[in-house]
Amino acid sequence: MVEPKYGGNVGAVARTMMNFGFNNLLLVNPCPLDDECYARAVHAYSILDGAKILNSFEEVTNSLDYLVATSSIETKSDKKHLRNPVFLQDFASHIFEIEGKVGLVFGREDYGLYNPEIAACDIMIRIPTKDEYLSLNLSHAVSLVLYTLFLNKDFNPREKRNMGRVEKEKLIEFFNLLLEEISYPEHKKEKTKVMFKRIMGRAMPSKWEYHTLMGVIGKAIENIQRNKESR
Amino acid sequence: MVEPKYGGNVGAVARTMMNFGFNNLLLVNPCPLDDECYARAVHAYSILDGAKILNSFEEVTNSLDYLVATSSIETKSDKKHLRNPVFLQDFASHIFEIEGKVGLVFGREDYGLYNPEIAACDIMIRIPTKDEYLSLNLSHAVSLVLYTLFLNKDFNPREKRNMGRVEKEKLIEFFNLLLEEISYPEHKKEKTKVMFKRIMGRAMPSKWEYHTLMGVIGKAIENIQRNKESR
Repeated sequence: MVEPKYGGNVGAVARTMMNFGFNNLLLVNPCPLDDECYARAVHAYSILDGAKILNSFEEVTNSLDYLVATSSIETKSDKKHLRNPVFLQDFASHIFEIEGKVGLVFGREDYGLYNPEIAACDIMIRIPTKDEYLSLNLSHAVSLVLYTLFLNKDFNPREKRNMGRVEKEKLIEFFNLLLEEISYPEHKKEKTKVMFKRIMGRAMPSKWEYHTLMGVIGKAIENIQRNKESR
Repeated sequence: MVEPKYGGNVGAVARTMMNFGFNNLLLVNPCPLDDECYARAVHAYSILDGAKILNSFEEVTNSLDYLVATSSIETKSDKKHLRNPVFLQDFASHIFEIEGKVGLVFGREDYGLYNPEIAACDIMIRIPTKDEYLSLNLSHAVSLVLYTLFLNKDFNPREKRNMGRVEKEKLIEFFNLLLEEISYPEHKKEKTKVMFKRIMGRAMPSKWEYHTLMGVIGKAIENIQRNKESR
C-alpha cells in the first residue's frame, strides 16, 4: 500500500489478506496504524504486526521481482499505454505462471498511484466496473484482487456434492413408480420423468438429500398401495 | 441489509452498488444513516436517499420473488442442510436465468443472518475463503457478490425461467401437505421442509416445471386421501 491515509483501510486490508491467504504487507509512508486500524483488522493483527514499513517506493521496486499496479483510471487512447490496463480476471489466470516475488501495488485513497509509480510497475490491472462510477473503495479493490487470485490459485470452483449415481437412479425410479401409482396420464409421463431428472440435475442434491427425498416418495407410494390393498 | 450496525458499512455498500450497477437498497431496522455513512458512500448518496427502510424481515420476503442468503458459516455435516451453501461463482452463473425480483440478503456485522432468516431464503451462498478465517467484512462481502454478478451479467443470453413466488409457495405448501398425509415423523418434518425448499431453490424450476410437480404431488395427496375415505 502506497501512502494510505486512513488506518481503518489498512486494517480492512489486513483482514481481507487473511481471508484469502496472503501474508506480506508492505506499507510505503503509511498513516499511523491506530486503534481503528487494529479494530478493523479483527483477527488479522498478526499481519499488521508483521507489516514492513518502507520510506520510499524505490524500496519496493528493489525488493520484488514483478510489480502489479492497480488503477481505476484508464486512458481511452491506446497510445497512452502507461495506463493501458489488463483486466483483473485475465491477469489472475496468468500470474501464477510467474516465478519470483510478485507485488500488488495499491495507491492512495484519493489519488491512487502517480504516473512514475505506475511506470515503475510491470503491468497495470483494472477491476472492471460500470463506466459511470469507476472509483472503488481502497480496501474493496484489494479484496476483489485477492479474492480473484485466491480463486485462481488453490480453489476448485466446482462444489463437491456427494452425488451418488446409485442414489440418483434409485430416486428417479421411485419417482417413476409414484407416477404409476397415481395413474399419471400416459401421454405426459415421459415428459414429466425427464423434467424431474432435469430438476434434480440442476439441484445436485447431496447423498443425504437423496435419501430424505426417497423416504418421502417411498412413504407416499406405500400409503397409496396399502390403502388400495385394504379396499 | 438486515440490521446493519454501522453507518459506515451502509455507505460503503451504497458505493459498491453504484460501482457495479445495482440500485435498490432495502434496509431492515438499520442504524442511523449518519455522516460517516454519507462520507463512505462518496458519490453514491442517491442510493442512500432512495433506500427503502423496512421494519421486519417479513416485509422483504413478501416483496421479492427469490431470496439469496449469504453466510460464511457452513456446517460440516451434510445433514444440516439449512446452511448447506452454493458457492458464489456457481450461483452467479445461473442466477440470471431467473425472472422476477431477486434479493441478496446480508446479515449483521457480528451475527450475520439468524437461522429463521436463512430458512426463509431460497438459497444460501458462500464466498469461498481460506478455512482459517472465514469471516469477511460486511461491505467486502457485498462487494465480492456484486462484482461477481456484474461479471456474469453481460454474457448471459440464456433462457429465462419464470419463477413465480405464488407457484413456489403453492408447491412448498403441497409438499408440506404430503408430509402430513404420509404421517411423516414429527421430529424430522421441519428439516425435510427446509431441505425441499433448498433443493427447489437450487434447481430454479420454470413455471411449467412447478405446475407439473404440483400436479404430481397433488395427485399423490388425492390418492392417499381418497383411499383413506373409502375405507
